[in-house]
Amino acid sequence: MNKFKIALVQLNVTDSKTANLDNAEKLVKKAADSGADIVALPEMFICPYNTKRFPEFAEKADGTSVERLSRVASDNGIYFIAGTIPELDESGRIYNTAFIFDSKGEIIGKHRKIHLFDINIKGGISFKESDALSPGKTATVVDTPWGKIGVAICFDIRFAELFRHMSLEGAKTVVVPASFNMTTGPAHWDMTFRMRAVDNQLFMAGCAPARNPDLGYVSWSNSILTDPWGRIVDKLDVDEGLLLHEIDHGYVDDIRTQLPILSGFKEREQYK
Amino acid sequence: MNKFKIALVQLNVTDSKTANLDNAEKLVKKAADSGADIVALPEMFICPYNTKRFPEFAEKADGTSVERLSRVASDNGIYFIAGTIPELDESGRIYNTAFIFDSKGEIIGKHRKIHLFDINIKGGISFKESDALSPGKTATVVDTPWGKIGVAICFDIRFAELFRHMSLEGAKTVVVPASFNMTTGPAHWDMTFRMRAVDNQLFMAGCAPARNPDLGYVSWSNSILTDPWGRIVDKLDVDEGLLLHEIDHGYVDDIRTQLPILSGFKEREQYK
Repeated sequence: MNKFKIALVQLNVTDSKTANLDNAEKLVKKAADSGADIVALPEMFICPYNTKRFPEFAEKADGTSVERLSRVASDNGIYFIAGTIPELDESGRIYNTAFIFDSKGEIIGKHRKIHLFDINIKGGISFKESDALSPGKTATVVDTPWGKIGVAICFDIRFAELFRHMSLEGAKTVVVPASFNMTTGPAHWDMTFRMRAVDNQLFMAGCAPARNPDLGYVSWSNSILTDPWGRIVDKLDVDEGLLLHEIDHGYVDDIRTQLPILSGFKEREQYK
Repeated sequence: MNKFKIALVQLNVTDSKTANLDNAEKLVKKAADSGADIVALPEMFICPYNTKRFPEFAEKADGTSVERLSRVASDNGIYFIAGTIPELDESGRIYNTAFIFDSKGEIIGKHRKIHLFDINIKGGISFKESDALSPGKTATVVDTPWGKIGVAICFDIRFAELFRHMSLEGAKTVVVPASFNMTTGPAHWDMTFRMRAVDNQLFMAGCAPARNPDLGYVSWSNSILTDPWGRIVDKLDVDEGLLLHEIDHGYVDDIRTQLPILSGFKEREQYK
């Protein structure tokens, strides 16, 4: 099975956890009813993107929100990259975590954002995620009936090596819950999704929140799907909505044969 | 000294070695007279880009063409990334090689193309460089009065790791003699130069031959300079000409402070 339908849910995030979960559930059902096999939510869809609010919204992996997200997957019979939430571990550390469910609601993967968003652009945005969060350490690639899917989170995408690692692990699509901002979005969002797809010869899907100028951190939105030749297959604007599109992993195999970058990489010297 | 002027010579390649060298010398002098500190020529500027012709044009590193290129550097008092030529070694192997000279004409580096261009695009281009050429193994970064400069050749640019390696070795600009074609050029040329610059927070300069539809391999041309924020600083069209622009390596330091990707990379885990 090479072909499947992916849905990226560009939802509007508020500061009510319950409202955000209700809205996510409604939109995931809409996606599934439209034929989606795999559904993704945005980064921190459950709370405002604000380091001071993360502790208040954080939950353990066996908390009620994760339990509810599991039920959303099984009720709709979809594979589910459930955006990210602030995850609390045993020792009180908080991570920016994507839980990944199969169509029965079983957790088949969990990605903790590896590269935290610490940035200070002159005349643009300043943000220091490491004030509140701890970094993950490992790449995440899960099995699905349509092939392997990698998962990374927002600023992780800045690091080409992580995407090479996932492609060498067999990923043919990488899903990235993300929320670029009004400085880095126009400069780098489209190009980064296009180029990681070209370099690693896979599909890249970026799922962002809808734009809400009332929040302290304003998302660039523009949820996007790019293909292994670097084309933008589909893209949303700034409003709440669904990006729903078929992906054919057979095209990944075609491109890898025509332009043998990955095999060239495997044979390469270490350049020293 | 952070600021210097770079010139990319987009010259028209013919099948006469002497004519190509004469033309290169004339245009390098023009660039130097216009204030260029560093001048680059395109990939295989000395011969048609054709695997069957490489043996006929190949010369050893102490051959007359390299000697002449050295004199072009010293006569004009410029640092010189002298495009590439087919280089013959002691054992009869041929490489796609860039010789790099300082302003006294001394060879300060030599880059042999690492990733050979073996490609077979459906409905597009087929080419197999490895029919005639052997691959280099090592990355090339040279010292100049304005900071370290990396050198890579055309298909090398497909491999993100090589550019990360050069940036970690201290390169603040990477010069790429190259010749993309009419299939991959429109799809990937601009974006690849922009994204390697963003990922590694350095300037990228791509120097290509002018477009000549009479040759078997038609170059996309479009010589280009991109900056560490991913902007296209300057770009040529398809005719013979000079791209001449100031580069400020101080901007590299600024961007590396504002968006700490390289330090984040150094601290990263291996993702396993």
